[in-house]
Amino acid sequence: MKIICSKEELVNGINIVQKAVSAKTTFPILEGILIEAGDQFKLTGNDLELGIECFVNADIREQGSIVLNSRMFGEIIKKLPDSEVLIEVKENNNVIIECDNSHFELKGMPSEGYPSLPQIESEQTFTISQKELREMIRQTLFAVSVDENRPIFTGSLIECIDKELTIVSIDGFRMAIRKTVHENDASNFSVVVPGKALNEIVKILQTIDDNVTICSSQNQILFDIGNCRIVSRLLEGEYLNYRSIIPKEYETSVRANTKEMLSSIERASLITLDEKKYPVKFNISDDKIIISSNTEIGAVREEVRVDVNGENMTVGFNPRYFIEALRVIEDDEINMFFTTSIGPCTIRPLEGERFVYMILPVKINNE
Amino acid sequence: MKIICSKEELVNGINIVQKAVSAKTTFPILEGILIEAGDQFKLTGNDLELGIECFVNADIREQGSIVLNSRMFGEIIKKLPDSEVLIEVKENNNVIIECDNSHFELKGMPSEGYPSLPQIESEQTFTISQKELREMIRQTLFAVSVDENRPIFTGSLIECIDKELTIVSIDGFRMAIRKTVHENDASNFSVVVPGKALNEIVKILQTIDDNVTICSSQNQILFDIGNCRIVSRLLEGEYLNYRSIIPKEYETSVRANTKEMLSSIERASLITLDEKKYPVKFNISDDKIIISSNTEIGAVREEVRVDVNGENMTVGFNPRYFIEALRVIEDDEINMFFTTSIGPCTIRPLEGERFVYMILPVKINNE
Repeated sequence: MKIICSKEELVNGINIVQKAVSAKTTFPILEGILIEAGDQFKLTGNDLELGIECFVNADIREQGSIVLNSRMFGEIIKKLPDSEVLIEVKENNNVIIECDNSHFELKGMPSEGYPSLPQIESEQTFTISQKELREMIRQTLFAVSVDENRPIFTGSLIECIDKELTIVSIDGFRMAIRKTVHENDASNFSVVVPGKALNEIVKILQTIDDNVTICSSQNQILFDIGNCRIVSRLLEGEYLNYRSIIPKEYETSVRANTKEMLSSIERASLITLDEKKYPVKFNISDDKIIISSNTEIGAVREEVRVDVNGENMTVGFNPRYFIEALRVIEDDEINMFFTTSIGPCTIRPLEGERFVYMILPVKINNE
Repeated sequence: MKIICSKEELVNGINIVQKAVSAKTTFPILEGILIEAGDQFKLTGNDLELGIECFVNADIREQGSIVLNSRMFGEIIKKLPDSEVLIEVKENNNVIIECDNSHFELKGMPSEGYPSLPQIESEQTFTISQKELREMIRQTLFAVSVDENRPIFTGSLIECIDKELTIVSIDGFRMAIRKTVHENDASNFSVVVPGKALNEIVKILQTIDDNVTICSSQNQILFDIGNCRIVSRLLEGEYLNYRSIIPKEYETSVRANTKEMLSSIERASLITLDEKKYPVKFNISDDKIIISSNTEIGAVREEVRVDVNGENMTVGFNPRYFIEALRVIEDDEINMFFTTSIGPCTIRPLEGERFVYMILPVKINNE
């Protein structure tokens, strides 16, 4: 193998595929990046759960392939001058890297042992801009469960029904739903993607209008970003019928400024060292919510002006669940719907159904 | 006590004095910030090694003082709206903090137990701009020893002789010297300031022309920045007569571009996992330095074009010592003076004596 490419493009490619490379495994080859020059020059990272391949523009002088330790290869390329880089595989898997007056010789690993990415062929595809998919993942990912006892909830449901794409995360105390409708696309699949994989994918997606094509097989999902293909395995099992648990009725609706609510809850939670022990209390009355908290350290009382429709109500919440939802909402104002002091609260946009955040309350002592 | 001040100025003050507050001590009061309203409003942090007091503009309605847990006080104030903050001490050390619609009640600690900052009176003062002192500390601090067996070298020597201020750090394998001459000032003191304290002080100093006045007593040094006074204890013991160990003669002098040398040594060190085991080799000849390194992982060869005066020479170094020195040098070009393959190398500016970095070589196998 012998190729010449720009340092900058090579660094971009390495940064992307490194997200799928294991830091420490029992198989040294999985700590490597597969470097292949065929018709195109391609880098691959694969930890068997998440696999990423990325095409990099290169002048291919000689075809071939090699595996180089990811950390070492990445560090060297990033430190090279901003110039043309030559990569050449010699005998015995020796790799030469040259750039201006720098000359490296490294020991590579034969590419035969490297697990190739599965091919996913499906006519069921859904196309969405990188920007929108990035937002949808970001706005639901935080509610993914970390409880390994119920593995299915350590992933997000990605559901495509006709023209509607929905992402759902649930952790037992709260739920995040985000949906979008694309008139030009129609597809049908419903899969659960590991939160860990989505956490890497969201870093690769950029806030640009370029498209991602999503398609899924029985046990894999593919995100195709043109010069880059990301394949994740799926979680097996039945996901919750999330639609059935969203409350349809409510006692009290509150329209509030998102940032004001967020700051007040953040401040009220500052003195709750142990959030499970010390919930924050929402006291909804007339034209305001009093958010308060009482702990061994002290007391906080926050007043937020809001529009209230319905009964006055007192209800307690784990402040973190509100904070994490409010932080990802970009709308200036939100509607909050409270059922009872022991029933769930839902947060929705003023119009439409773009998102729903549902949060279960916690019991509070009524002083 | 009752004061009103701007949130922004209060946050600035807290950020500064927090640098002297212990994160975890056996005395809870040392995890606190002393808040005092006398003629002026003042915050104090003090971990008994480093003490910082900072004046904050405030409308003082009632004099008094209290100690509040530093972390808690800091987090609360930083999260408040950008508005006027009221701090009021009530009965039983209860502290009220109010800002717009936020109301906090916290338990304070009586200020009587808080250690006050020592007063340092000295006619021997040296005045220098914040910017210059910051640079001088930054450019020597990295060479301070971390070996507690020789405590005196865990600090930097700050020496003021007549019009000349010198800062020196030594760790047994290298030395960093930085000096400045101020025609209008003259003072005489020679003290050793703990590296840990300098590490905090360098963060407080800004890149501005405002002055710092330095003065020293028997066992304390004071940095006075106008609205902020920083007092550090000194290290006891005799410092090395550093002048005597700087080589006066050399075999070979090399004039090089600082950034080119730095990048090449950085790259050559990428494959030296254990720097003590694998030094980088400098091969100086005619019009270039070949910097090379050979390890189990591979081999690197870097070529840097330089001006050489004197004999050809091969000498090995711990690359980190060169990298750390070259990173803080702001001059585009440097002179390096090599004595022998077992004698020290010194790095100096092209003109003058603003800095000297001295680095001891390590033995290399001549292949």
